[in-house]
Amino acid sequence: MNYQNASIFIIGTELTRGIIGDKHGQLIATELSHLGYHVDRMVIVPDDGTIGSVLRDGIATSDVVIITGGLGPTSDDLTRKVVADLAGVPLVRDQASFDYLYKNIGERIWGSNEVQAMFPTGFVPIPNPYGTAPGFRGYIQKDARLVACIAMPGPPREMDPMFFNEVLPLLASLRGHNDFERDEYSSYLVAEAKLEELCHQVDIGTVQWGTRFQNLRISLYLTGERGARRQFAQRLSQFMGPSLLEEGDHEAVDLLTDELVKQKLTISCAESCTAGLASKLLTDKAGSSSWFWGGVSTYANEAKSKILGVNQAILDGVGPVSRECAIAMADGIQTVSGTDVAFSITGFAGPEGSEVGEVWLGFCAKDRQKQAVKLKFSSWGRDSVRRKACVAAFILCRQYLAGCQLLDMCEQWQYI
Amino acid sequence: MNYQNASIFIIGTELTRGIIGDKHGQLIATELSHLGYHVDRMVIVPDDGTIGSVLRDGIATSDVVIITGGLGPTSDDLTRKVVADLAGVPLVRDQASFDYLYKNIGERIWGSNEVQAMFPTGFVPIPNPYGTAPGFRGYIQKDARLVACIAMPGPPREMDPMFFNEVLPLLASLRGHNDFERDEYSSYLVAEAKLEELCHQVDIGTVQWGTRFQNLRISLYLTGERGARRQFAQRLSQFMGPSLLEEGDHEAVDLLTDELVKQKLTISCAESCTAGLASKLLTDKAGSSSWFWGGVSTYANEAKSKILGVNQAILDGVGPVSRECAIAMADGIQTVSGTDVAFSITGFAGPEGSEVGEVWLGFCAKDRQKQAVKLKFSSWGRDSVRRKACVAAFILCRQYLAGCQLLDMCEQWQYI
Repeated sequence: MNYQNASIFIIGTELTRGIIGDKHGQLIATELSHLGYHVDRMVIVPDDGTIGSVLRDGIATSDVVIITGGLGPTSDDLTRKVVADLAGVPLVRDQASFDYLYKNIGERIWGSNEVQAMFPTGFVPIPNPYGTAPGFRGYIQKDARLVACIAMPGPPREMDPMFFNEVLPLLASLRGHNDFERDEYSSYLVAEAKLEELCHQVDIGTVQWGTRFQNLRISLYLTGERGARRQFAQRLSQFMGPSLLEEGDHEAVDLLTDELVKQKLTISCAESCTAGLASKLLTDKAGSSSWFWGGVSTYANEAKSKILGVNQAILDGVGPVSRECAIAMADGIQTVSGTDVAFSITGFAGPEGSEVGEVWLGFCAKDRQKQAVKLKFSSWGRDSVRRKACVAAFILCRQYLAGCQLLDMCEQWQYI
Repeated sequence: MNYQNASIFIIGTELTRGIIGDKHGQLIATELSHLGYHVDRMVIVPDDGTIGSVLRDGIATSDVVIITGGLGPTSDDLTRKVVADLAGVPLVRDQASFDYLYKNIGERIWGSNEVQAMFPTGFVPIPNPYGTAPGFRGYIQKDARLVACIAMPGPPREMDPMFFNEVLPLLASLRGHNDFERDEYSSYLVAEAKLEELCHQVDIGTVQWGTRFQNLRISLYLTGERGARRQFAQRLSQFMGPSLLEEGDHEAVDLLTDELVKQKLTISCAESCTAGLASKLLTDKAGSSSWFWGGVSTYANEAKSKILGVNQAILDGVGPVSRECAIAMADGIQTVSGTDVAFSITGFAGPEGSEVGEVWLGFCAKDRQKQAVKLKFSSWGRDSVRRKACVAAFILCRQYLAGCQLLDMCEQWQYI
């Protein structure tokens, strides 16, 4: 059978009352689309039994139905019963699931939790390491078709790992991807539409990719044959330019601070257009006092000269957005702080003016030559320019510590 | 007829492919719930005609069906036709809508845009000031019931105003709220669950409220009779404490910077635990150079003494999270900057330690006595403490400029 059409059913009264927004739908739809499924509906219903009728409709038209929620121990949680009824089979206890629950919640299992070890006959439990409700999977005969039916718990910290680790490989194999594996990369500074375009350019037809936009980076997921994935990522990285695509799931700031911790280095920074954002990001994680001395948000020119000692001739001459000022700011904060390394950010964040997106970044460290580079971000929008400037500063500061010539590196960043 | 059950249908292939996440569903569900509707399903379908069958099911069980999307000029956009078919009526041109479109897009209307002036016979167009697709509303006879059917365009900048301005009053009147008006308030520092609890306490049974959580505040919407709304807000404000509930839609930082602009004052700040976040927020808007001189993120103790001149005896004695240090930091940055006003933030952001959430805020201004107050935020989580500390600093700085005794004010903030 060709598994092609999929429906997603999400159960939760807190969703239909608008108290929280659904996140599962988009996540599941994205992954299904990457596997080549056509999602023909995403349905959100309350915990009141409506799932019965909407699921019946879904089975009539879809090859795969995915359900989240309704697996809890309370009487509202009807997913097991509804699926068993549609499959025309009774619920039976799965002894392994019962034993697992018993081990974890003990005597309390004799209350309503007992139902969480019950599954429609013929269905296979999916273990849930993060909660009491296992998922389950199986098939429902509908005319000449065997509809695949997968149920997962509703809480994201239980659903997400179950989906990625257990359900996605199954969905991949139903679509004929038999050696399903995937790689995750973190991509920086290149806009989502451009990243998508570059993926098309480097693709040789055998790799599927998916992207997830986050605040300061884009996650890229690759599926397909291992060698092809590797080749795809290498070519993509060459197109993007050095250090803009990293294997794994990392914020740019963490790549830098991991390096600082490893080398036992301290850092300080001087910001103008980003006005404290880099400093804030460097301290987002607890323990940041081991690497972060402090920073200055020298917005006015007078602040640059007073706190950092930037020469008035620079400010009056080439101006605050210049190589000279970036170097003087980095040098100034390092002199005040005495940290091992320091960087500066000065630029035009906009939103108006022909120079919006132009940013100078300066770097200095003990026993190392000072460097400054100019970047021109294509993105419009004050917030976007400020975020990109910080991410670029983190990436370049890490490379500066590694001894790179930043100018050479930035010249290859064509698509930022 | 008692209009009670509602279904929401959202059309967009970019949603079922997971490319973007839906926002309409939660927004509409929230408002419907506040009006006393029961939302029995939210359904997302692609632009491929699936809307026909799911809408048929919705009309069978719901008293109100709300559709977003599928009103564009392309052949994928089927909402008009599907509703007309379900109502059993032909599409007819609405001359006023046609004239409006003609005025705005001219001769191009003779292409596919022409269909955007067509509506199911008997339905009423809903004007769309932000795009080419008007919405429409009307009734579909289903057995003995008249099902209300409302269609709106998909793009949020078109849907949102149409929903709030045109559709919500209609939905209110269908539920029997005949003088539908609403007030918006901005609430600060009090957690969402506590705000909800306080609303229950002050309610006299005639006001409906809804909240929308945002990053740095919670929006509160009140509906019901005008006098009762006013009374509700006044009592709520008294319960919350002064300056934590403001009429209208305002970030705390904007209330402060509006005041700075009005009084032509400049500001600087010294941050420890928030490490640049306050400075970043003060410069989020373009034009901030007119009020913001700069700030320092003095994370290490040495930074506090070196840049701000905080006395080493304070740091060694009462320590950096103290009245003395907060005053010395505010005084220090004002001395360096020469701005009219300055504030400081120093505290324990956590996530660990018994003192997490304890923050000292210091304020000084020319010709005004220095003040410092201690707050203890109940929220856990580093990020939350840092955000609340900044919001509190903005609120208190504004009141400091107005001549308030901050200590008296903070003593009334019982629920932060």
